[in-house]
Amino acid sequence: MMMEASFDTEESFDDPSCLTPQPPGSVSPARRQTVKEVKETKATVNCVTFPLPGEGPEQQLLKPNDWSYCDYFWADKKDPQGGACIPGIEVLIQKQLKGKTLQKEMAEFIHERIKIEEEYAKNLSKLSFSPLAAQEEGTLGEAWTQLKKSLHDEAEVHLKFSNKLHSEVEKPLLAFRGEHFKKDLKKYDHHIADLRKQLASKYAGVEKARKALADRQKDLEVKTHQLDVKAHKHEEDIKKARRKSTQAGDDLMRSLDFYNQTQCKWFEEMVTSSMELEKMEVERIEFIQTHLRQYTTLRHETDMFNQSTVEPVDQLLQSVDPGKDRELWVRENKTGEVRPVDLDI
Amino acid sequence: MMMEASFDTEESFDDPSCLTPQPPGSVSPARRQTVKEVKETKATVNCVTFPLPGEGPEQQLLKPNDWSYCDYFWADKKDPQGGACIPGIEVLIQKQLKGKTLQKEMAEFIHERIKIEEEYAKNLSKLSFSPLAAQEEGTLGEAWTQLKKSLHDEAEVHLKFSNKLHSEVEKPLLAFRGEHFKKDLKKYDHHIADLRKQLASKYAGVEKARKALADRQKDLEVKTHQLDVKAHKHEEDIKKARRKSTQAGDDLMRSLDFYNQTQCKWFEEMVTSSMELEKMEVERIEFIQTHLRQYTTLRHETDMFNQSTVEPVDQLLQSVDPGKDRELWVRENKTGEVRPVDLDI
Repeated sequence: MMMEASFDTEESFDDPSCLTPQPPGSVSPARRQTVKEVKETKATVNCVTFPLPGEGPEQQLLKPNDWSYCDYFWADKKDPQGGACIPGIEVLIQKQLKGKTLQKEMAEFIHERIKIEEEYAKNLSKLSFSPLAAQEEGTLGEAWTQLKKSLHDEAEVHLKFSNKLHSEVEKPLLAFRGEHFKKDLKKYDHHIADLRKQLASKYAGVEKARKALADRQKDLEVKTHQLDVKAHKHEEDIKKARRKSTQAGDDLMRSLDFYNQTQCKWFEEMVTSSMELEKMEVERIEFIQTHLRQYTTLRHETDMFNQSTVEPVDQLLQSVDPGKDRELWVRENKTGEVRPVDLDI
Repeated sequence: MMMEASFDTEESFDDPSCLTPQPPGSVSPARRQTVKEVKETKATVNCVTFPLPGEGPEQQLLKPNDWSYCDYFWADKKDPQGGACIPGIEVLIQKQLKGKTLQKEMAEFIHERIKIEEEYAKNLSKLSFSPLAAQEEGTLGEAWTQLKKSLHDEAEVHLKFSNKLHSEVEKPLLAFRGEHFKKDLKKYDHHIADLRKQLASKYAGVEKARKALADRQKDLEVKTHQLDVKAHKHEEDIKKARRKSTQAGDDLMRSLDFYNQTQCKWFEEMVTSSMELEKMEVERIEFIQTHLRQYTTLRHETDMFNQSTVEPVDQLLQSVDPGKDRELWVRENKTGEVRPVDLDI
């Protein structure tokens, strides 16, 4: 029977013939036997029918070794506060809603980092324009000027970092799964909740039909054991009661049929939806992974570009030359190179 | 004559016998000739005597091709505002005083950089402790937690940078040439100014003696051409006048001697002091060069250490695994893996 069948495709469960309806027919004493058994091999919880532990054929997972959502959320989750139960699908949907929030918080975090980088860049750039020691001359003066300029270059690097963080990390994280997302999730929710409601009403139908059948069977019993009546009229009553009892049996069969069909529809929806939600979670994780990778790439770039801002300073410091600087300064500031001589008459 | 002698050692000028005093003696007509010539071959400016352009033997630089301070600051610097002249040594001392200021300004600049780094580190560290997306789970959660932690590591790197900037760049730049420095410079200044004063008074002495000699010579002239007097008395007068004139000649010789000795002392001080100041400037430039190199070294280190803060994040991002995360989450959140079965009678 399909619900035991295991399969490994990402495709949602595709064999709708999960119901093998019992052939309608009158309820024999043998049947009455089975009715008793039912109570021992199956249990219906919140209108969903499960085999009792150890009862019924062994169930293989639909996707073994895959921890697939479609295999682990069949029961409702008991509310710890003992309040209303939460359907399994709801648990999966909550996970996606939480994921959306976390993704937004990550974007927020990146935004904070951007602000820090902008502030840092602003301060570095401001300092690089300070006039401090601007009068230093010669090769030392050139090295010093370049050192000050390098702060502006650093500022540029950090500004570029923050801009790329914005366009390549923060914005994508915010854009991923727009405002439609929650509406889409609600669809799964409502669709499945709706099927559960139908299942409930169908189950009520079954219960009603079962009671009706029991009454009819009792009535037939009584009639068949009546003796103190005219034979011909007696025959009439028994025939009538048997007809009604058979009728009730057919009704029960039909409502069982309806119930099982609805439960099967719900089952299929559960499989498709949970596997859809599973795919969404994989996408979410991979999307975030990609964009956090982009963050580290940009950080590496920033460090590399920063290195390069210091190199011209290093070169000019290499070529600082006190002799050259003295020549430059002396040429400009000398007062006279003719040395004094003795005075004579 | 020494003042023309060139030498290349860093040692201050070491042959004090720069004066070759004229042998005292009576002023012959020939001498009177030379006295006239003096006015054409030499000029005394602010009491210092220089050869006139083209006059006197060719002067070689004391330290050729070296642009040494000791060769270019013999004359006083004319104040552009036409005010008092500034002695050459003063120009050299001003250069050192300015150097001290520039060095202080560089320390200030580094101090500003330190403050920027501290602020940056503070903000990074603060953000790293933010609770944003702290609920992310599984391998993705671990990568995210490490990414947040990496901001704290970055903060540590920048804090270390600012601490080292303080101890290895700012402090040395401030400490180099303490408060004694300006006092030491004043010493050179006063010592040389003092010698200039002495030179002035000695020059005044020369002028006075020169005038006295001229008077005496005139008087002798007059006497020798007097005829209308008794021969014997006349002889007496001439002898007396000649004696006085010779006396005046000797006085002039002596004051010339004093003047030239003083000028020589000043000359030696000028050479030693200017070469001392030259050495100080070389030290200043090399000291600053060394500490700006330390700055770039620390910057390079910072970029390197920064790289290493990202690596653990990269590693954890590598091992983000949606399947693993699903297993973890499903184990914790599954509601039930027993699938529903058909209900029957």
